Amino acid sequence: MTEALDSVFKPKSVAIIGASRSPGKIGYEILRNIKEYGYKGKIYPVNPAADEILDIKCYHSVLDVPGTIDLAIISIPAKFVPPVIDQLAEKGTKAAVVISSGFSEVGNKELEEDLIRRARRAGIRIIGPNVFGVLYSPTRLNATFGPRDVRPGNIAFITQSGALGIALMGWTVTEKIGLSAVVSVGNKADIDDSDLLSWFRKDENTNVVLIYMEGIADGRKFMQEARLTTQFKPIIVLKAGKSKKGMVAASSHTGSMAGSDVVYSASFKQAGVLRAENLEQAFDWALAFSALKIPKGRRVVIVTNGGGVGVMATDSCEAAGLEVFDPPEDLRKEFKRYMPEFGSVKNPIDLTGMATHEEFRGALRTAIKHKAVDCIIALYCETAVSDPIKIADVVTEVFHTSNKPITVTMIGGENVSQAMALLKEHGVPVYPDTERAVSAMAALVRWAERRSHPTM
Amino acid sequence: MTEALDSVFKPKSVAIIGASRSPGKIGYEILRNIKEYGYKGKIYPVNPAADEILDIKCYHSVLDVPGTIDLAIISIPAKFVPPVIDQLAEKGTKAAVVISSGFSEVGNKELEEDLIRRARRAGIRIIGPNVFGVLYSPTRLNATFGPRDVRPGNIAFITQSGALGIALMGWTVTEKIGLSAVVSVGNKADIDDSDLLSWFRKDENTNVVLIYMEGIADGRKFMQEARLTTQFKPIIVLKAGKSKKGMVAASSHTGSMAGSDVVYSASFKQAGVLRAENLEQAFDWALAFSALKIPKGRRVVIVTNGGGVGVMATDSCEAAGLEVFDPPEDLRKEFKRYMPEFGSVKNPIDLTGMATHEEFRGALRTAIKHKAVDCIIALYCETAVSDPIKIADVVTEVFHTSNKPITVTMIGGENVSQAMALLKEHGVPVYPDTERAVSAMAALVRWAERRSHPTM
Repeated sequence: MTEALDSVFKPKSVAIIGASRSPGKIGYEILRNIKEYGYKGKIYPVNPAADEILDIKCYHSVLDVPGTIDLAIISIPAKFVPPVIDQLAEKGTKAAVVISSGFSEVGNKELEEDLIRRARRAGIRIIGPNVFGVLYSPTRLNATFGPRDVRPGNIAFITQSGALGIALMGWTVTEKIGLSAVVSVGNKADIDDSDLLSWFRKDENTNVVLIYMEGIADGRKFMQEARLTTQFKPIIVLKAGKSKKGMVAASSHTGSMAGSDVVYSASFKQAGVLRAENLEQAFDWALAFSALKIPKGRRVVIVTNGGGVGVMATDSCEAAGLEVFDPPEDLRKEFKRYMPEFGSVKNPIDLTGMATHEEFRGALRTAIKHKAVDCIIALYCETAVSDPIKIADVVTEVFHTSNKPITVTMIGGENVSQAMALLKEHGVPVYPDTERAVSAMAALVRWAERRSHPTM
Repeated sequence: MTEALDSVFKPKSVAIIGASRSPGKIGYEILRNIKEYGYKGKIYPVNPAADEILDIKCYHSVLDVPGTIDLAIISIPAKFVPPVIDQLAEKGTKAAVVISSGFSEVGNKELEEDLIRRARRAGIRIIGPNVFGVLYSPTRLNATFGPRDVRPGNIAFITQSGALGIALMGWTVTEKIGLSAVVSVGNKADIDDSDLLSWFRKDENTNVVLIYMEGIADGRKFMQEARLTTQFKPIIVLKAGKSKKGMVAASSHTGSMAGSDVVYSASFKQAGVLRAENLEQAFDWALAFSALKIPKGRRVVIVTNGGGVGVMATDSCEAAGLEVFDPPEDLRKEFKRYMPEFGSVKNPIDLTGMATHEEFRGALRTAIKHKAVDCIIALYCETAVSDPIKIADVVTEVFHTSNKPITVTMIGGENVSQAMALLKEHGVPVYPDTERAVSAMAALVRWAERRSHPTM
């Protein structure tokens, strides 16, 4: 398995079977993405009627390709896919991504079984069918027909939904969220979430795995792989088809049996998998995990320049099980240095609306240094006396010298938008609402505690 | 009361007591905001040492001002405020906004009592003290030291927190959310949320009232006004200080006794007040209400081009109490016209990834026309075959010809960001996550049902 997935993510050569000369066609867009995202291995377009596409020599058949094909991306009508697998067997291919649809998702189970039978015989592992492709940023391989310029990072994203997956790829670009991998798993006729988990567990380029799923065929296998993986890195699952109606919709969408949601929830918990409630939360958490700063416990300090947001964050912390503890005397005294008389050294630490980036720097450094503090939530409301860009600079600086996790909320206008973009570019998890910063921190804490006490 | 608040929001003349010549000073920034936001009434800066500020004639004392002062904005050291109230009595002033801090919020209760005693004697109603000001967009009055170019709209925003209020004003500009009013209520020594509710209830420029509060002194009065108001327009409350720790923080922040959260929740429910869980949700709901399309019931149709988002929205609908009903035969037949063979006419209506703006237009119009449908949730994932901007155009067009509410989710990259900005500019409630579109629709439904059955 490892070898097959090495071929998927780190191939020395890629053949695009069904490469097309027509912009807009899937077989053209995939080839273009592979070329323009900067893949450095050999690229073999295969098309019986073309000699060159996008300035790359094209082969009329798989058998015409010189040398080995590590990875095959197949985008031809469904019924032609199984015979191609036989040909790939002769080219030493280890893995194929079958983009083509028209298999079990439209009721054509026999064709899918034929495909898998031939793949097994040939020793080729299959991703799909019915997928939009695979991306792995460390090797600059974008073998998808989704957006091209995906931001490199360390979140691996596995998706059972195609439309959602493609749309989210674009969204991560706009939101400055970096990805190590995107895997569209489609019908999961062969390679499934479990296989991918076992590969990403050892992948040094991946810090966290985010899975959008509607159903799993082999729950036991998934839980086994998940339990092993969460010892090393967090898994965030967004499981759709929770409700009765949603389950019916999921089954008509991907043909997968969704199964009882209660069972999923219990199993996820047992395996240490973090279950997100919605898309926003899933990516919020992933963003916090991608920085890979692990809290030692749940004692949080809230540093704020606004009393109101401090109160709201305190509410959220209490609900999420984070401990907004009373700072010991020495810590209070230290905080006192960075606020006017009417500030508060009780937690939340209220630097007041007078605070500039200097006070934020002082208070944040203080919190990082003190042993009573496990994690920090920094809240900023735009004021006339402070510059959001300078606040972002200070938070970035403190963040990267800290071994304690920090999540951030910034609220304000255009300058705050820019400051938040800066923070994201520097890998600092920042959110536009206090509750989201708290929820991300609580997810970090839950994972860290589970890791140190896996039997919990 | 009505008369006093008419003077606050629709004054014929405004005096700024403590107007300053120094940019950055509060007394300068307020004057500049009043002038540059476009207020058309008379502006009287008052400063003992200046003859002109920002090209406006300045008066050395309140008593020097010719004619009546409808509204006084006071930004001078706290101890000088009470005597000014006496002077204002002579100028026929009905209301004063006391920006100055240094009253009960720092323990100076006597000074605050003195202020209120004199105001009562003079027949002057007070907003504050300890506030950042008041904005009312219909009269182009921005008497705050917050951001200037607040977008006109029909959401009235009342805030007990200063820093948060100012930061959110800026945020609404960036997010293209329109406001009718912003009121910083600060210490609420006189005018409180209840008084404001009774005024906004009759204000034709306000469709929805959003309140950030940490505590209310007179709960009975608030509930009375709220119950009356929710018969006409929705009230969304974000009540901080829910948790034990949060309550303590709130009381040290504004000095208000937060009281038991359970009591607040029960009272809000009884009065038909919608309680939001967090900032994002409060504004999400307000955005949906500002369009003022009221659902007849909870039967929802989900129209989507992505199966996965359809499933997630279905889950959220079931959790929020919206009914994802099975469309009757004639409606299914009609939907069928706008999708390929493998689309789904079961709810969610899956137009599939092949859908363009034409199919969205057809399906949305179909849903609007059919009597079985109470409300519509439209979900779009960016695809290669569709143009997000055209989708936004179609949704805008359909939205404004519909008497049924529509909330929208769009997911994708830069083009989707632009499309979402367009939708917001045209007053269409659009969100980046399915759950948020569903939550906003569910809030509309809850309010609508409550309004038709106030005893529920």
